[in-house]
Amino acid sequence: MLIIMHINSTENQLEAVKQRIRAMNLTPHVIPGQTRCAIGITGNKGTLSPDLFKNLPGVVQCIPVTKPYKLVSREVRQEDTIIDLDGIKIGGKEIMIIAGPCAVENEEQIMLISQKLAEMGVKIFRGGAYKPRTSPYSFQGIGEKGLKLLAKVRAETGMKIVSEAIDNETLTIVAEYVDIIQIGARNMYNYSLLKKAGQLRKPVLLKRGLSATLEEFLMAAEYIASEGNFNIILCERGIRTFSDYSRNTLDMNLIPAIKRLSHLPILVDPSHATGDRKTVLPLARGAIAVGADGILVEVHHEPEVALSDGPQSLYPLQFKQLMKQLEKIALVSRSETGYF
Amino acid sequence: MLIIMHINSTENQLEAVKQRIRAMNLTPHVIPGQTRCAIGITGNKGTLSPDLFKNLPGVVQCIPVTKPYKLVSREVRQEDTIIDLDGIKIGGKEIMIIAGPCAVENEEQIMLISQKLAEMGVKIFRGGAYKPRTSPYSFQGIGEKGLKLLAKVRAETGMKIVSEAIDNETLTIVAEYVDIIQIGARNMYNYSLLKKAGQLRKPVLLKRGLSATLEEFLMAAEYIASEGNFNIILCERGIRTFSDYSRNTLDMNLIPAIKRLSHLPILVDPSHATGDRKTVLPLARGAIAVGADGILVEVHHEPEVALSDGPQSLYPLQFKQLMKQLEKIALVSRSETGYF
Amino acid sequence: MLIIMHINSTENQLEAVKQRIRAMNLTPHVIPGQTRCAIGITGNKGTLSPDLFKNLPGVVQCIPVTKPYKLVSREVRQEDTIIDLDGIKIGGKEIMIIAGPCAVENEEQIMLISQKLAEMGVKIFRGGAYKPRTSPYSFQGIGEKGLKLLAKVRAETGMKIVSEAIDNETLTIVAEYVDIIQIGARNMYNYSLLKKAGQLRKPVLLKRGLSATLEEFLMAAEYIASEGNFNIILCERGIRTFSDYSRNTLDMNLIPAIKRLSHLPILVDPSHATGDRKTVLPLARGAIAVGADGILVEVHHEPEVALSDGPQSLYPLQFKQLMKQLEKIALVSRSETGYF
Amino acid sequence: MLIIMHINSTENQLEAVKQRIRAMNLTPHVIPGQTRCAIGITGNKGTLSPDLFKNLPGVVQCIPVTKPYKLVSREVRQEDTIIDLDGIKIGGKEIMIIAGPCAVENEEQIMLISQKLAEMGVKIFRGGAYKPRTSPYSFQGIGEKGLKLLAKVRAETGMKIVSEAIDNETLTIVAEYVDIIQIGARNMYNYSLLKKAGQLRKPVLLKRGLSATLEEFLMAAEYIASEGNFNIILCERGIRTFSDYSRNTLDMNLIPAIKRLSHLPILVDPSHATGDRKTVLPLARGAIAVGADGILVEVHHEPEVALSDGPQSLYPLQFKQLMKQLEKIALVSRSETGYF
Repeated sequence: MLIIMHINSTENQLEAVKQRIRAMNLTPHVIPGQTRCAIGITGNKGTLSPDLFKNLPGVVQCIPVTKPYKLVSREVRQEDTIIDLDGIKIGGKEIMIIAGPCAVENEEQIMLISQKLAEMGVKIFRGGAYKPRTSPYSFQGIGEKGLKLLAKVRAETGMKIVSEAIDNETLTIVAEYVDIIQIGARNMYNYSLLKKAGQLRKPVLLKRGLSATLEEFLMAAEYIASEGNFNIILCERGIRTFSDYSRNTLDMNLIPAIKRLSHLPILVDPSHATGDRKTVLPLARGAIAVGADGILVEVHHEPEVALSDGPQSLYPLQFKQLMKQLEKIALVSRSETGYF
Repeated sequence: MLIIMHINSTENQLEAVKQRIRAMNLTPHVIPGQTRCAIGITGNKGTLSPDLFKNLPGVVQCIPVTKPYKLVSREVRQEDTIIDLDGIKIGGKEIMIIAGPCAVENEEQIMLISQKLAEMGVKIFRGGAYKPRTSPYSFQGIGEKGLKLLAKVRAETGMKIVSEAIDNETLTIVAEYVDIIQIGARNMYNYSLLKKAGQLRKPVLLKRGLSATLEEFLMAAEYIASEGNFNIILCERGIRTFSDYSRNTLDMNLIPAIKRLSHLPILVDPSHATGDRKTVLPLARGAIAVGADGILVEVHHEPEVALSDGPQSLYPLQFKQLMKQLEKIALVSRSETGYF
Repeated sequence: MLIIMHINSTENQLEAVKQRIRAMNLTPHVIPGQTRCAIGITGNKGTLSPDLFKNLPGVVQCIPVTKPYKLVSREVRQEDTIIDLDGIKIGGKEIMIIAGPCAVENEEQIMLISQKLAEMGVKIFRGGAYKPRTSPYSFQGIGEKGLKLLAKVRAETGMKIVSEAIDNETLTIVAEYVDIIQIGARNMYNYSLLKKAGQLRKPVLLKRGLSATLEEFLMAAEYIASEGNFNIILCERGIRTFSDYSRNTLDMNLIPAIKRLSHLPILVDPSHATGDRKTVLPLARGAIAVGADGILVEVHHEPEVALSDGPQSLYPLQFKQLMKQLEKIALVSRSETGYF
Repeated sequence: MLIIMHINSTENQLEAVKQRIRAMNLTPHVIPGQTRCAIGITGNKGTLSPDLFKNLPGVVQCIPVTKPYKLVSREVRQEDTIIDLDGIKIGGKEIMIIAGPCAVENEEQIMLISQKLAEMGVKIFRGGAYKPRTSPYSFQGIGEKGLKLLAKVRAETGMKIVSEAIDNETLTIVAEYVDIIQIGARNMYNYSLLKKAGQLRKPVLLKRGLSATLEEFLMAAEYIASEGNFNIILCERGIRTFSDYSRNTLDMNLIPAIKRLSHLPILVDPSHATGDRKTVLPLARGAIAVGADGILVEVHHEPEVALSDGPQSLYPLQFKQLMKQLEKIALVSRSETGYF
């Protein structure tokens, strides 16, 4: 159930509605909009009757929300959510390009590549300090030392920082250092981690699980939102199919579908979807053309010697050309007629 | 095995190589290039020794071809294949937009929509006369009558015509009327039909099967090429995955992979991949951004009353805007740095 | 719509119902049951009102059939369909084991292996004369010569024969020689071939396509049934998934689902699902335990030298042990409490 | 690298080999066998030369292990691992049937159903105290209170107990109460949790992720083993495919593949793979026929009122019949010729 308040409704009226909801042992979630606010209700097993609320003062409309996701749905909030980091925006009219190496390796590497990217105009820098790896014998990241280096990158370049948390323990540490907390594809079903991330107020970049349905993906976001954190950025990074020639299959169909069903911004990570530099470039172009709010892409100044995911990392020069191309495509796909 | 002939090699030298191949009970396939020609060999079980041919006059190089597909591979022919229909080209610098209704329904419908599309600058018109349908009780197309109407469209508008053949019998009939013979996704493994299409010399538009691997797709094209018909246009139209919100998943990763491995042009059909008009638009933009040589898209003047696939057919006005957007994106993706 | 006739209804009453149906430009399909008969109606676009028929003499009930498949559905016919070839039954209480080599290679091979299998008690013999192969350069079968050898096997051993037709042309030839016509997975969407097979009266063994949904599989069977041929045997042979260690994934869940929704018998082909002899044995046991009506399995006296699919063919001795095991498992899975 | 020690090698010889390994900054893992012991080495980036160890006293053989999984591979340990809980064995000649409700709901429920199952001869009881659910608004389990009830079940019936841990925090609590710690499909890629479970010595029941490849599944087990805990039980519970009629597709091909590649026991969970009681029965039979070491199945005395997964829970009487059937099938599939 979603309760829409009148444009001119008062604080007291809002409070009265919230009290009615709490009296039923349910939880109200206030969702502020540009002109009016709405109240989402969660905790109910079955459907609630609109009659319970529609006569309360200040209430305009009561909408039963049938999808299992509520707070992240377009029905609950019509305007696009824009994540705003001191004026650096994700989900707005401009596309956002987040770039950096797969893993933070050492100070020299990270300062060198971050310098180059900042000069090219990159505003958000990515780099893994904790790396979830298929093999226990693979390089697992340099941990908190990496986070400190990322903080240094921010101090020196002004770029915002995103890095991955892989469990409840690292979440606390990562949250101290970064501007955006990444939750990776392997942890999309880790509801314990999602809830903890929901208790923070920092933006969360949530990657889609390898075989997650659209509904499961939005429900994972709902776990974060249901704890009160609405600062969620979705990210498509390829799904597992029968494909014999590509690590994963980038699911471009997802972008317009998410845009219709949810108010959250969505990025595309073409690097992990392909595992191959030459395919990253065209897929990055495709992502923006399809309507993604930006991309998350791996760039390394020396991909040949990278400790992880070298073959999929772009060379700085390739990346520079790509940025220009993406701007041009965005002019088309984000124009008035471009939106779908 | 692929034998590369010298730029200045003579007809007699070429003939001598072919005779040596035939003497071994193998089949030579002459593949003319811009500056020199190559000879593909098929029919061999194991690998052939380069020594067998490299000392023949006019031979420059003998390349063992390890992929199961030979004639359609980039190794055998480095330049892009361009299908040229009286100057209307598929696979060249320009993108090609093929449009039309899912099915030819009647004269009024087909003349009306073809008129509109011709005015918008469409050069190749599509329409199904024979329709493969999941249910035996669904509309199966109006057959040869539909082909006659398509011929009339060509006569009146100058557009070239593409229509689907669904078995060996209809192949013969379709080939009489159309400029490009379409073989649908459901028939991609129909090797009998592929061979028959290979014996013709008309261009064949071959759609990828719902769960065909890249290798199977190229092998299906190889069936056509091995009979001597090199006029093949590939088409990605969505694969079957676990997706819960879209009819199929358009496999954009395929485009750059095909471009690397094969010299054949490849189109994208966003209409069948999605089954939903609003998703067709962004995916069409994505296809061109990713490097496809064009799209195959369903347009209907009155989608609401279409006999098949109405919900995925674009309105003429939507299509007109789309064409303009695709041109702009092609300027980026087909520029020198756009190629991958 | 399905019309159920009274147990004591007369021929004239039946005829009157059929006439009413034809008068509406629809097609009646009489489905004889053990105690009463039913009439399926096809050709209607929307739903038909039961009122149209329920007052006709002899009519007991009119059941709207909502599934897209009608004639092959359990709603239309409650009793299991049993295919009876001179007393050799598929779909009854006994399981049926169909065995033989992948391809008919030559007279010596086929007589040797068929002799061995007949001695072991095999009643239906399989062998491919026309082989659909992914590569145009692979062995494609020995054609009609192979069918003649299969006929000789029948003459000498008394076993019934099953072999595959790969297009409309070979269908006519295959039908002349065999007792059961096989339509392979690659042709499951070849509606033209399915219709032609429906016009014959010989049993058809229809394999599930690599990525066919249950509904598409039953609709393919419906194509055959809608032409009047109800002698259909379904066969699960593995689906395409992301699996990294097995050629295909045998979809055991399908067996009980088909049994609930359709009256047709269903076999399992563990050979093609796995591509590996050692896995064929346990999966064959699993198929019978899950409730399949039998298996279709490849046996070769010298798998090492087989022209196709050698690695998945069982040795005769392995097969002999397997037969005994399957009989024991069938005692459990086909007992009263075994049925689901 | 795997170092095989001589049958008569001494403790000192073993120690010397371990020291050599540690001196190279690698980790030795002693794997005791029935007649001799082996030493697995982990931590090496590239391949190690056998020359480094083969001349040490007591060393018989040095085997390079090429698969990414080492400790869980059949190459490292040839004999089947048998998990032994006070004489209750998983992975031995007998199959093991683990049964119980999806969730522990309350004392009355859990005592009632456990009583019934103990009387039927069930030796290991399952029940969820912490439930990972797709929706944050669904019942999430009763937590530690549920674990206390499970402990009471063990005290009163003598059955061993298995229950799921969903994060590092609950792992510690669950480990205090249960005999086997379950890690669910959603956490198969949660490497942080796997490592923590590896630091315990209690048996871990590890479920395959929804789209995990065989290699990823074994690597998840390797995470546990690499921390020193070899008491691992694998469990197949269905994979995500395009299937339109079943919640998941039980991947029966996996069982023989795992048996060949790994020494770990493997169970099948037919309840989660199907989501439907009527399909659980045949698939349970199939699992044992295919060679699984047992099943994990949901049974509820009143499935209609269960708080979660009611429709897939068996009635006690159904379960009783199933147990008898599975014993009979195991006689076939676990006989000398039954093994593959």
